[in-house]
Amino acid sequence: MSLERILDRIDSDLDPAIARLMELLRIPSISTDRDYKAECQRAADWLVADLASLGVEAEARPTPGHPMVVGHVGEGAPHVLFYGHYDVQPVDPLNLWSREPFDPAIEETADGKVIRGRGSSDDKGQLMTFVEACRAWKAETGEWPCKITFFFEGEEESGSPSLVPFLKENADEFSVPDLALICDTGLFDRDTPAITTMLRGLLGEEVIVTGPKMDLHSGMYGGAAMNPIRALARVIAALHDETGRITVPGFYDGVPEITDEMRAQWDALGFDADAFLGEVGLSQPAGEQGRSALEMVWSRPTCEVNGITGGYTGNGFKTVLPSEARAKISFRLVGTQDPLQIRESFRKMVREMLPEDCDVRFEDHGASPASVMSTADPAFEAAREALSDEWPNDAAFIGSGGSIPIAGYFKSILGLDSLLIGFGREDDLIHSPNEKYDVRSFHKGIRSWARVLDALASVKS
Amino acid sequence: MSLERILDRIDSDLDPAIARLMELLRIPSISTDRDYKAECQRAADWLVADLASLGVEAEARPTPGHPMVVGHVGEGAPHVLFYGHYDVQPVDPLNLWSREPFDPAIEETADGKVIRGRGSSDDKGQLMTFVEACRAWKAETGEWPCKITFFFEGEEESGSPSLVPFLKENADEFSVPDLALICDTGLFDRDTPAITTMLRGLLGEEVIVTGPKMDLHSGMYGGAAMNPIRALARVIAALHDETGRITVPGFYDGVPEITDEMRAQWDALGFDADAFLGEVGLSQPAGEQGRSALEMVWSRPTCEVNGITGGYTGNGFKTVLPSEARAKISFRLVGTQDPLQIRESFRKMVREMLPEDCDVRFEDHGASPASVMSTADPAFEAAREALSDEWPNDAAFIGSGGSIPIAGYFKSILGLDSLLIGFGREDDLIHSPNEKYDVRSFHKGIRSWARVLDALASVKS
Repeated sequence: MSLERILDRIDSDLDPAIARLMELLRIPSISTDRDYKAECQRAADWLVADLASLGVEAEARPTPGHPMVVGHVGEGAPHVLFYGHYDVQPVDPLNLWSREPFDPAIEETADGKVIRGRGSSDDKGQLMTFVEACRAWKAETGEWPCKITFFFEGEEESGSPSLVPFLKENADEFSVPDLALICDTGLFDRDTPAITTMLRGLLGEEVIVTGPKMDLHSGMYGGAAMNPIRALARVIAALHDETGRITVPGFYDGVPEITDEMRAQWDALGFDADAFLGEVGLSQPAGEQGRSALEMVWSRPTCEVNGITGGYTGNGFKTVLPSEARAKISFRLVGTQDPLQIRESFRKMVREMLPEDCDVRFEDHGASPASVMSTADPAFEAAREALSDEWPNDAAFIGSGGSIPIAGYFKSILGLDSLLIGFGREDDLIHSPNEKYDVRSFHKGIRSWARVLDALASVKS
Repeated sequence: MSLERILDRIDSDLDPAIARLMELLRIPSISTDRDYKAECQRAADWLVADLASLGVEAEARPTPGHPMVVGHVGEGAPHVLFYGHYDVQPVDPLNLWSREPFDPAIEETADGKVIRGRGSSDDKGQLMTFVEACRAWKAETGEWPCKITFFFEGEEESGSPSLVPFLKENADEFSVPDLALICDTGLFDRDTPAITTMLRGLLGEEVIVTGPKMDLHSGMYGGAAMNPIRALARVIAALHDETGRITVPGFYDGVPEITDEMRAQWDALGFDADAFLGEVGLSQPAGEQGRSALEMVWSRPTCEVNGITGGYTGNGFKTVLPSEARAKISFRLVGTQDPLQIRESFRKMVREMLPEDCDVRFEDHGASPASVMSTADPAFEAAREALSDEWPNDAAFIGSGGSIPIAGYFKSILGLDSLLIGFGREDDLIHSPNEKYDVRSFHKGIRSWARVLDALASVKS
């Protein structure tokens, strides 16, 4: 049977596949920092060339931000749209990395070999599992498993500003497929693969509070002049009440309780909250009282301060009374919470809390609702069985605390369901120093996609 | 009379005096930033050479930090100790400067000529007013006005860590003088000179709150993991109550009400609080309810956040849940408030407010009590009259919001009273971008010191 031959070829081609991924990882495609614009273009061009080596005619299509890589190949049914992103998170604090973030290497660890480097797990390594599965399929059979549209974004880590306009402008080209495949999620645990069926949305806001029109000497003005850091701290402190609930008016409108069925399935996973928190040096779930840690990250909304700055932050001390303080604040959203309504309510609350002598302005860093997939499509069960064949444990349908807005856009703009399959692990340190991807994730990830493509071809053809 | 000849020489020597100051201003002696250590040494060496050109044998004496410049000259009575500091504040944010901070120049403004550059007012320009007065006196008369010990510090802007040990080790050398002269304060207004008789103390604390042991992805952990920015914001928000009072337990122990006599003198100054705040874009005194703005800065204690940082603060957005957040917090102290007791009380309050999963450490950035001078010494009245002769309006005894801990140390270690005379103006932008010193302040400042030295010689000899 050809699937076995394809899997054998994946095994024997693993070293060259890793070498190809290393090339891509060496490109510092940090999308949120405008200093790296040319590097994002370079990553897009690399992918176009790599797809071309498979016989896929792809293009790096310009946008007002970073390019979209698009390629079409194959014939017949099903027609799937595969999505991944080639951009990566910033690397600071650089001093906490054990090696240069963009000089990746294979490292031996107690838990097996890993590929260390920014983007290895999020999302270049994951994206390449699908590309390598296609490469092996084509090399072994001379054919494509089905009709495939490749779609790689370069702005996922910076709020995807070009995505919606691009999908809308090219709706004809993208609305053909039966199903979207997205590789940007994780395993449930080392031996248990997962299909993510619930994703939180994300609202990102930057709050800039200004007080005096210039930095002041705290001796000369301290006491008499309003300090914008103090005003901003008051706002942040007020965003949660004593029970951990978020206080933005109307925030919980559209937040559902999970079904009893889902709760039973989650309980069966045997999630170890103590280990989950203990691994990062914590002991107490910090969210709403009375909720489990798993609920807090999979099915409850959040408000987090992702960054704050104001005044003198260098070495030593400076008795300055600053003119400005700013915070980057994000909300993870669930159910049918409306990001735009929450943005308005949040901004109103901030304005009302500030003293008369402070002004505020807001910068918009994206607003996307949560996604909940329907598992009724037989493709979901077929994919779950295919994954179960590859890994020690059966695959599970799970939730995810992260936000993959693309799944929501595929549904709202293209009417397309998404199958979210990924091989990341919780200790991959994505968004942190020393990001890694297990060689096992990469290898079995490629094999998993070969199995899933085979299963989908059976279901949909 | 020789004073008139000395004043004439000061007038005719103004341009070379400015050129000498410019040389000193070109040395970026930022004491708080260890990258500028060699520049601090260079500034000390420049002062040693400049004093040598006057015939003063001075030395740059090493300390664990930056050098102390010490020189002795002259004979007889009185014997005064003159203090200034050659270190300067950091220059960030650099983009708000209209010129390079260490490339000073004379600029024409609507209010007259100014010397623009970091340190022009705080404190290099002020320090040089005294040196230039001595230079003119010596050049014109061939003698010194009295016995003088020059003492220039290089760590005033970074908490003066070496000062107390140095004074204690050299107490014999420094305990001789009758009176200390300190030039690091301001005029009351453009035409009204001032002798500062009340100075606030300063307690500087850096608070470093840690939560998870690494930066986390806010999607994967958000909700479940404690965010140290949120914990720090809660602490900062709680430091003031709704009436603007500081909530650190015991904080107001030792805070006196000013005397009726002092209040009457201050009322007579006609301080314009609206203009004072309006000039920096504010309208409301932000301190304790029921206190005037002048009280807030001259006679009431404060708590200010001078800097805060945590998480991602670069361009764009990063959904990180940070491992650490830090704030630089300072307290201005008055009366007999005990900085060490307040430090303990503050640290205890912070520790008690933090959630279980946060740790905190503190860095000490100095602790000095307030100073209140006795104006009974006839030197105070003699100096006040000498200043009144130079400026359009009579000189006043005033308070100051700033902290000049040296005055407290001179009292506690050497038993020495300090005469605080300076020529800075409130719009000098010290500690801010575009710092300047009026040429008029520099010129009349030099003349003022010649008059004061003449008056002190009459009183004390």
